[in-house]
Amino acid sequence: MSDQSDNASLWGGRFTEATDSFVQRFTASVSFDQRMAAQDIRGSLAHAQMLTGAGILSAEEHEAIVEGLARVQEEINNGDFPWSVEREDVHMNIEARLTALIGDAGKKLHTGRSRNDQVATDIRLYLRDAIDAICEELTRLQKGLVGLAHTHAATVMPGFTHLQGAQPVTFGHHMLAWNEMLERDYGRLEDCRARMNQCPLGAAALAGTTFPIDRARTSDALGFDQPTRNSLDSVSDRDFAIEFTAASALILTHLSRMSEELVLWTSAQFQFVELPDRFCTGSSIMPQKKNPDVPELVRGKTGRVNGHLVALLTLMKSQPLAYNKDNQEDKEPLFDCIDTVLDCLRAFGDMVPHIKPREARLREAARAGFATATDLADYLVRKGLPFRDAHEVVGKAVAEGVRLETDLADMSLDRLQSFSELIGEDVFDVLTVEGSVAARDHLGGTAPAQVTSAATDAATRLESR
Amino acid sequence: MSDQSDNASLWGGRFTEATDSFVQRFTASVSFDQRMAAQDIRGSLAHAQMLTGAGILSAEEHEAIVEGLARVQEEINNGDFPWSVEREDVHMNIEARLTALIGDAGKKLHTGRSRNDQVATDIRLYLRDAIDAICEELTRLQKGLVGLAHTHAATVMPGFTHLQGAQPVTFGHHMLAWNEMLERDYGRLEDCRARMNQCPLGAAALAGTTFPIDRARTSDALGFDQPTRNSLDSVSDRDFAIEFTAASALILTHLSRMSEELVLWTSAQFQFVELPDRFCTGSSIMPQKKNPDVPELVRGKTGRVNGHLVALLTLMKSQPLAYNKDNQEDKEPLFDCIDTVLDCLRAFGDMVPHIKPREARLREAARAGFATATDLADYLVRKGLPFRDAHEVVGKAVAEGVRLETDLADMSLDRLQSFSELIGEDVFDVLTVEGSVAARDHLGGTAPAQVTSAATDAATRLESR
Amino acid sequence: MSDQSDNASLWGGRFTEATDSFVQRFTASVSFDQRMAAQDIRGSLAHAQMLTGAGILSAEEHEAIVEGLARVQEEINNGDFPWSVEREDVHMNIEARLTALIGDAGKKLHTGRSRNDQVATDIRLYLRDAIDAICEELTRLQKGLVGLAHTHAATVMPGFTHLQGAQPVTFGHHMLAWNEMLERDYGRLEDCRARMNQCPLGAAALAGTTFPIDRARTSDALGFDQPTRNSLDSVSDRDFAIEFTAASALILTHLSRMSEELVLWTSAQFQFVELPDRFCTGSSIMPQKKNPDVPELVRGKTGRVNGHLVALLTLMKSQPLAYNKDNQEDKEPLFDCIDTVLDCLRAFGDMVPHIKPREARLREAARAGFATATDLADYLVRKGLPFRDAHEVVGKAVAEGVRLETDLADMSLDRLQSFSELIGEDVFDVLTVEGSVAARDHLGGTAPAQVTSAATDAATRLESR
Amino acid sequence: MSDQSDNASLWGGRFTEATDSFVQRFTASVSFDQRMAAQDIRGSLAHAQMLTGAGILSAEEHEAIVEGLARVQEEINNGDFPWSVEREDVHMNIEARLTALIGDAGKKLHTGRSRNDQVATDIRLYLRDAIDAICEELTRLQKGLVGLAHTHAATVMPGFTHLQGAQPVTFGHHMLAWNEMLERDYGRLEDCRARMNQCPLGAAALAGTTFPIDRARTSDALGFDQPTRNSLDSVSDRDFAIEFTAASALILTHLSRMSEELVLWTSAQFQFVELPDRFCTGSSIMPQKKNPDVPELVRGKTGRVNGHLVALLTLMKSQPLAYNKDNQEDKEPLFDCIDTVLDCLRAFGDMVPHIKPREARLREAARAGFATATDLADYLVRKGLPFRDAHEVVGKAVAEGVRLETDLADMSLDRLQSFSELIGEDVFDVLTVEGSVAARDHLGGTAPAQVTSAATDAATRLESR
Repeated sequence: MSDQSDNASLWGGRFTEATDSFVQRFTASVSFDQRMAAQDIRGSLAHAQMLTGAGILSAEEHEAIVEGLARVQEEINNGDFPWSVEREDVHMNIEARLTALIGDAGKKLHTGRSRNDQVATDIRLYLRDAIDAICEELTRLQKGLVGLAHTHAATVMPGFTHLQGAQPVTFGHHMLAWNEMLERDYGRLEDCRARMNQCPLGAAALAGTTFPIDRARTSDALGFDQPTRNSLDSVSDRDFAIEFTAASALILTHLSRMSEELVLWTSAQFQFVELPDRFCTGSSIMPQKKNPDVPELVRGKTGRVNGHLVALLTLMKSQPLAYNKDNQEDKEPLFDCIDTVLDCLRAFGDMVPHIKPREARLREAARAGFATATDLADYLVRKGLPFRDAHEVVGKAVAEGVRLETDLADMSLDRLQSFSELIGEDVFDVLTVEGSVAARDHLGGTAPAQVTSAATDAATRLESR
Repeated sequence: MSDQSDNASLWGGRFTEATDSFVQRFTASVSFDQRMAAQDIRGSLAHAQMLTGAGILSAEEHEAIVEGLARVQEEINNGDFPWSVEREDVHMNIEARLTALIGDAGKKLHTGRSRNDQVATDIRLYLRDAIDAICEELTRLQKGLVGLAHTHAATVMPGFTHLQGAQPVTFGHHMLAWNEMLERDYGRLEDCRARMNQCPLGAAALAGTTFPIDRARTSDALGFDQPTRNSLDSVSDRDFAIEFTAASALILTHLSRMSEELVLWTSAQFQFVELPDRFCTGSSIMPQKKNPDVPELVRGKTGRVNGHLVALLTLMKSQPLAYNKDNQEDKEPLFDCIDTVLDCLRAFGDMVPHIKPREARLREAARAGFATATDLADYLVRKGLPFRDAHEVVGKAVAEGVRLETDLADMSLDRLQSFSELIGEDVFDVLTVEGSVAARDHLGGTAPAQVTSAATDAATRLESR
Repeated sequence: MSDQSDNASLWGGRFTEATDSFVQRFTASVSFDQRMAAQDIRGSLAHAQMLTGAGILSAEEHEAIVEGLARVQEEINNGDFPWSVEREDVHMNIEARLTALIGDAGKKLHTGRSRNDQVATDIRLYLRDAIDAICEELTRLQKGLVGLAHTHAATVMPGFTHLQGAQPVTFGHHMLAWNEMLERDYGRLEDCRARMNQCPLGAAALAGTTFPIDRARTSDALGFDQPTRNSLDSVSDRDFAIEFTAASALILTHLSRMSEELVLWTSAQFQFVELPDRFCTGSSIMPQKKNPDVPELVRGKTGRVNGHLVALLTLMKSQPLAYNKDNQEDKEPLFDCIDTVLDCLRAFGDMVPHIKPREARLREAARAGFATATDLADYLVRKGLPFRDAHEVVGKAVAEGVRLETDLADMSLDRLQSFSELIGEDVFDVLTVEGSVAARDHLGGTAPAQVTSAATDAATRLESR
Repeated sequence: MSDQSDNASLWGGRFTEATDSFVQRFTASVSFDQRMAAQDIRGSLAHAQMLTGAGILSAEEHEAIVEGLARVQEEINNGDFPWSVEREDVHMNIEARLTALIGDAGKKLHTGRSRNDQVATDIRLYLRDAIDAICEELTRLQKGLVGLAHTHAATVMPGFTHLQGAQPVTFGHHMLAWNEMLERDYGRLEDCRARMNQCPLGAAALAGTTFPIDRARTSDALGFDQPTRNSLDSVSDRDFAIEFTAASALILTHLSRMSEELVLWTSAQFQFVELPDRFCTGSSIMPQKKNPDVPELVRGKTGRVNGHLVALLTLMKSQPLAYNKDNQEDKEPLFDCIDTVLDCLRAFGDMVPHIKPREARLREAARAGFATATDLADYLVRKGLPFRDAHEVVGKAVAEGVRLETDLADMSLDRLQSFSELIGEDVFDVLTVEGSVAARDHLGGTAPAQVTSAATDAATRLESR
């Protein structure tokens, strides 16, 4: 293997690093867990208040800690905080700085807790904030979809199965299908939030603590529903990260399905919709291109989130209780998952209200391919033919249509009657695409009236969140 | 590449199969979807009843269908049903057989529905049944754990972090940590069941139907909470399969953690517990072995369920609406996931109540390794030393103990006082393992009183399910 | 949770099964490992021959074993073999039957080996046979692609980036892109086969054996390149299964990309190719549909193989040496992966030669969207304009074309010259799609001459395998 | 959902960002692809040289480009380079800067190429460098293992199956089992490197270019074995990233197995080895702990790499040709995979030579649990008993030993003969652990002589790399 000189320049620093400092960097987490600093401080404030209530800290010590942590937060906000890889993680960095600022009271803050319950608390607080932010973005995107559904409740387009035109539907109906996916996503996030909203503080290293702590008090102060029920489980549990990432994988799966359709719909072959320029790019060599970059990129990011889910499941497999160093690996996938979901929802939330269906093109496509064949079959059933026999009759009529290159709606009554005597003049009402969609007039059907009503209900649900 | 003659014998049948019959076998699903026959029949009965109510079927036709489906079910139960790969799937097999048995009424059954909403209904019914069965097994296993917790609320064992003895806990406390994992699993299954319990019947192929169907009626008849809200989504949604498989991956992850501990605990080095012989095997060559086969195998099955989750997420990525043939691939991973979860829970449910902790060995292990060092630190804090300073004092005492090969509890008061004058005669109360666990006497702590109380609460929760 | 009566009927058998027989079924592997019976017998024959050479078996005993194993194989072939779940696996089933047939010599066969090295040998033999079969199918499919490339070396079609038409290419060139993917797949399988082709027999349970075995002899007899080098590794290694499954995941990824294109290309919007009817199906409710079932199903099966890869990686993570019961879980994913790859390649191998490009439609699509804009830019560069400036000029020309709904090739020379004075009469040669493809006349380019030459080279490589 | 004020502070920036600048950041790759700057420059130098040879650039232009790129590289090295998110990616940043520095010649550099073949080239160059660096680290680690194997060729320890002591092996033999895993990893990386070492330059956007390029020349200049064979495939292929990540997943799987054993072996219950302090950490609350942080963390990182593999497979699934924006998502998983593998190998390479087996403890453990039962069975077979009968006799002897709490080696000859008259005085030679390991004296066996010889061979192989 060659190119060692190149390696030297690329990875040389890595290779010449002394073992001790390499190990320090390798095992430290401060480079990525510092983003939980605000949560760490919130947790410490609640813990200090509880310790004071329990008589373990004096009022003066408490006051010093509150002021000291405020200064720490300010230093962090201002970019002045002296982060240090020697102090390993966000917790030790903050505690050490606090002690430097306020002295002995700082050394007492860690009474009755451990880094194990501390990090478990921080990460739950952080994730809870993230879920709330994601739920807001989901709602914004859903409102965009419901708005499109209202506007295009009667805009006819082809409905596909197997990417073959099957039956006409309306564009609004399609947007509401997308909305249903996100509605379930919202529910999963709510369930995840409710299940994880328990406070691990007090579990200490793994067995609880010998101090007379008041776990209900810290739990309340931090907005948790209740303290966790078992100390060993509290420090070893990472279910919430996996459950959240699994819910995220479904969000991205849904966005990937929407993206796929947008990519198809903006192709020269479909031309079903137009996307605003700012969500697309040109080409460095082909000036005529308008590439649907945002949907493509979102579709690609599905892999990232699926990958994080596998990373976390692999991480936790076969881990004996209670805390193991392996668990430090939970944060990067979780953080990147949060960022990805927020960014993708933001991008879709910005873009979706500006999707412009090309109505004439959609209607034309909806008419093609004998799209109302099912309507003819249903018509025959209503005239008394058993379903399977009606199916056979229509099969023959379509075969003839293919031969003649004539749609069913364009055949003469005579020709239609040659397939079944049950066919009468009224058949033409069911063979138009407008007649077809209007006839699917039941809960969940694509009739414009149903779509409008479903969009109104959806809007009401979104408002009441 | 060699061995072609061997290939011929192994895969010869495959190679000489005619293209047409190969494609038929390749695309058919009846070999695996026939296990939904009971659900398919249930769905058809509800659909027929609704069609009759809507005046689409006559009372006679309805009666014929009910009787015909009863005969079909009987044939299936007796193993007499003529399953045929030419009829592709369970739905067409049953409908064709029904029509053969009862004539024209059979041909009318499919009025107002499509295989797309039919299979979506069948699979939800099947999964709902499976979730109920799994929840029963989860409850049984949890009862076994809570029983052990009651019995061993005060049985001292080492609590580990980093697989290093950290602080004493009780065996009952450890069992309740396992129980907490399963408690969350139960909640996830309940949420999944509630979210999926909507009836897709009426979505038809993708757009709804032109017949005057009553979706609320079929939904009620099949025990669903309500009809689904959008026809396109109804036939394209497979969220429930993914959400269930993700919940299953967490169940297996939890069982893998318990399994890992059981494998460790039954090793010659640990000898913490004994497992009944029937969950172990011997060796074909080493007669002295007693291998913990069941925990090992369950641990191994985690991979299978994680794999199914990835399979389903990969499957749904980027699928345009509504139904695509790809979706036929949802069933095998889902079914195998259900079987695996049920079997593993059954195996653990049978085994757990018979786990025998070796109490003397556990107590001895709990005492080793300066396990009460934290208790000494807490003692010093209570005497007024700041936490971080107390930590330093104990560090020195332990270092001395290592040098002398003497546990803290076995040092003289004099020696202990040489590390801090704050140490008094009462220190020995906190240096025993019994004193250590008893002192962690708060909600979620390992004190025997807390463990007993937590076990009682857990039992109450389980009873009220 | 309800429906317990239904559960009873569904899973009742499972629930009422006695613990002992349940554990037996749960831990047995014979239901799936019996498909390695031929390999198990081959391995035993080689082992017996070696034992005889080493003086451990007599000539008579050897003869009895050879005859006995032949009868066992015959019973298996005829479906008469008394498979028994009590005997756990294929190995014990065969050995027990052999001993029943031939007496004491059967009991001696296991001398100097263990089930651990036996199963490691069987599974390698099985996988090696499978790889050979897969390589044959790969070659057959590749020949189909190369045949299409020859026929359609000059059939113009649009080349896409971002699913937007970018530059014209030829259909043959596209087929050769598919072929390149499979060429790498073949190489990966060859590498995997070479790396795994080492004989574990002689590793015994984990440490080797005390008998004077001749490992080179069994290795040679079974067609392995050499014996494995370390006994512990021999019984714990499952790299070959993972490496094969990873190679399979790439094969399916490639087939999924081809499938996606075939699904697009057969849609009403593209209409780029026609597939033979027997690889498609109709609809139960929409008689006009012709659904590309085979490509869709193959695309869906990608998930299955990705899932098996994750299953195996999860399985092996953190396993201590040497053999653990977990490893029994290696077989089902591996076997299903083999079946899936073989079936999908077979389906594509049958279908690909019958793909019919619709030439007129392809050419029309290739002309749309200013597909020769790059050619104009290159033309300007050859006339002396720097690349980035040429890009700008063409951008303006295309913008004008969009405004006028006129392709570059259809503009007058005057109009073209209004964008750059460098443009001359010869510009029209580069603005046709035929001119465009012909101009990309270098190794790997899409010029018909290059495609023909590349197809010829590919055919030669395939013939020389 | 509450805590909106907190969200505001956490993600406020994100929310108030204008759509346009958000989309720009969202779709730009320069934040992560700038690490390929050196490769991008190398590629541009080779391309410019080829263009000059083909008469497309003048000698002066070439000289200006060479000097300009040198200045760009210097600016990057010095941290002075004006990276800009508006210029999207590393390629446009460097080209724009070059043009700013040298004028028109910079605008000509992109003649005959596209970002699509440019990025494909850069990423292959980068990965090739990374593979070389990883191979060096692998070799270093393997040398450490082989060194331990030499030193401890005769150090007896228990060999495990099912984590139950099975038969004695030597520590050196175990180290060589680890080495075998890494030997295969090295082979996989070599194969991956060979397969990917083809030059995509000249594929341009997707179809090749109209300029008279010399692809062999750029390929040679960049150290590739040959140009790629198909332009569409060249810009759409990401097999190399997946193949490398799959090979990495196996490397981490192997390291996770070693880590698991090290974590077990350093536990209080095993105490098989000692690790140097600098690869361990203490506890913030339990001063007596010495936690095996490095093995735990490496074990945890397995999840990360498995996740990246799934991310890349998901990414590529179903992508139509040729380039799609999704592919931008290939880099982060690949880069993080490279970093992770390098760091973990570095950590192990530093640590492994300092692992100290505790010989007395290992020998004691090897003797426990009737570890030489197999040896007794083999002894009986050599005396003429069929293997399965010998197995039965030993089973009875062990059962008696368990009852009497006496190892086989400690039983009297009389007692041993009570199980079989074939047992003679010489039996005691085979019942010691030293006798047991020495007797496994064949290729791959654990006899010290074999281990020494295997270590010598391994060292020779490593030297000749």
